[in-house]
Amino acid sequence: MTRSDLIEQIQLKNSLLCVGLDSDINRIPLSLIANEDPVFEFNKAIIDATHSYCVSFKINMAFYESRGVEGWQSLEKTIDYINENYPKHFTIADAKRGDIGNTADQYAKAFFEAMDFDAVTVAPYMGRDSVLPFLKYTNKFTIVLGITSNDSASDFQMHGEETPLYKEVLLKTATYPFAERLMYVVGATKADALSEIREILPNHFLLIPGVGAQGGSLKEVLHQGLIKDYGLLINSSRGIIFASEGNDFALKAKEAAADLQKQMSTLLQESI
Amino acid sequence: MTRSDLIEQIQLKNSLLCVGLDSDINRIPLSLIANEDPVFEFNKAIIDATHSYCVSFKINMAFYESRGVEGWQSLEKTIDYINENYPKHFTIADAKRGDIGNTADQYAKAFFEAMDFDAVTVAPYMGRDSVLPFLKYTNKFTIVLGITSNDSASDFQMHGEETPLYKEVLLKTATYPFAERLMYVVGATKADALSEIREILPNHFLLIPGVGAQGGSLKEVLHQGLIKDYGLLINSSRGIIFASEGNDFALKAKEAAADLQKQMSTLLQESI
Repeated sequence: MTRSDLIEQIQLKNSLLCVGLDSDINRIPLSLIANEDPVFEFNKAIIDATHSYCVSFKINMAFYESRGVEGWQSLEKTIDYINENYPKHFTIADAKRGDIGNTADQYAKAFFEAMDFDAVTVAPYMGRDSVLPFLKYTNKFTIVLGITSNDSASDFQMHGEETPLYKEVLLKTATYPFAERLMYVVGATKADALSEIREILPNHFLLIPGVGAQGGSLKEVLHQGLIKDYGLLINSSRGIIFASEGNDFALKAKEAAADLQKQMSTLLQESI
Repeated sequence: MTRSDLIEQIQLKNSLLCVGLDSDINRIPLSLIANEDPVFEFNKAIIDATHSYCVSFKINMAFYESRGVEGWQSLEKTIDYINENYPKHFTIADAKRGDIGNTADQYAKAFFEAMDFDAVTVAPYMGRDSVLPFLKYTNKFTIVLGITSNDSASDFQMHGEETPLYKEVLLKTATYPFAERLMYVVGATKADALSEIREILPNHFLLIPGVGAQGGSLKEVLHQGLIKDYGLLINSSRGIIFASEGNDFALKAKEAAADLQKQMSTLLQESI
């Protein structure tokens, strides 16, 4: 998918919403457990129910890996299902991979070839070698961890007297060849850092987790982070997919997604 | 596996060797390709040929993930094969995972429960939340990236005016509860940093990649890093498993492993 395809979808739907499929098998309704692949059935229902309100789906790898081969099967079926039925949705593998060059090549192959994701999240700790192999792919995006939404994000991301590490990451990676294929993770709980981040990265898309369960404010994020081309994808996982853990889970997920989309739409109108 | 079990194996075998199963399907001998699971057949042959010379096997996840469900099947068969046939070998999932708490829980479950690895590598960028869930497991080890062996390691690992990031990572993580379950990745190409690292971490085991293909010196590493309880695992991947890409691959892998073990044994004798 290209940047303009993504922007077009945002415009059409008045939505910046990314639905996070952190599909914990221990939290999906009991009624689904008898299926051959309960997690896939759950995902399918969530995707069908929420697709009109979101422009992106993000799959959190950990919840699939924890189930071994079966989990990997649910994962592949899910990405294939989205690509077949909703090919205009921007798909993200939330994998946070990061390794030396020949290994990063293999991770890029996993997410961009073996599976057909539009984007993958990567961790910058090992530097340039660990990011460049992902950037070789045309019409694919690499989402580097900038500043994250968790409590201990500042343990190392704020390290450094003159420039905190996360800023150094933004500054350096933005000079890489094909840097236009980069996006960045910026936690919604760090909304006060967003305007500074926008000075460093005036054009890049930011993936914003932490709205909802983690407590970030949607209004603040749009206020600080929105650009002419939108430049924001806002993720909600648990707040949508586990809005209900009963048999009405798909309906409640739809309502939660619709509610977030409505808030986004209003805020987008206000900011024109 | 406990720390004393590992130390006992090192003592018995006079070896610090970890054999890295970076089993790239494009580099394994053509004669194996007709098998139902060529990568597993390759791994089995390598493991059988090298187990007497090494105390550990490290599986590089990327080379399995790049092959999707089939790759994950090869992976599970490989770890099960080692655990059944060579239960005294210390097994490492080289995964470099790192995510927020509820996601890190799932990764820990993947490597310590769904699969029975003794250790997993993790990336520290997201801080304490992303490491602690792994440390809850008794007799399991969590290997944090300290300073890595790749060219661009210094891009971010050296960031900071007073204390470079990698030192801050060592200093902070070493204060975590159950820090005795931590080990650290320290690239062999950074051997000059090893004596300083030993001042910060006098007792922890260090996993040293980068001897061989990446150019690090074995002698230097032992000289700077060895402690009374050894405290070193030295990984070689490509130098062993692809010592030959012909039908004699297992024999050549055995010779390469034996050669490294012999060098280690000599250096260990000298340092008594």
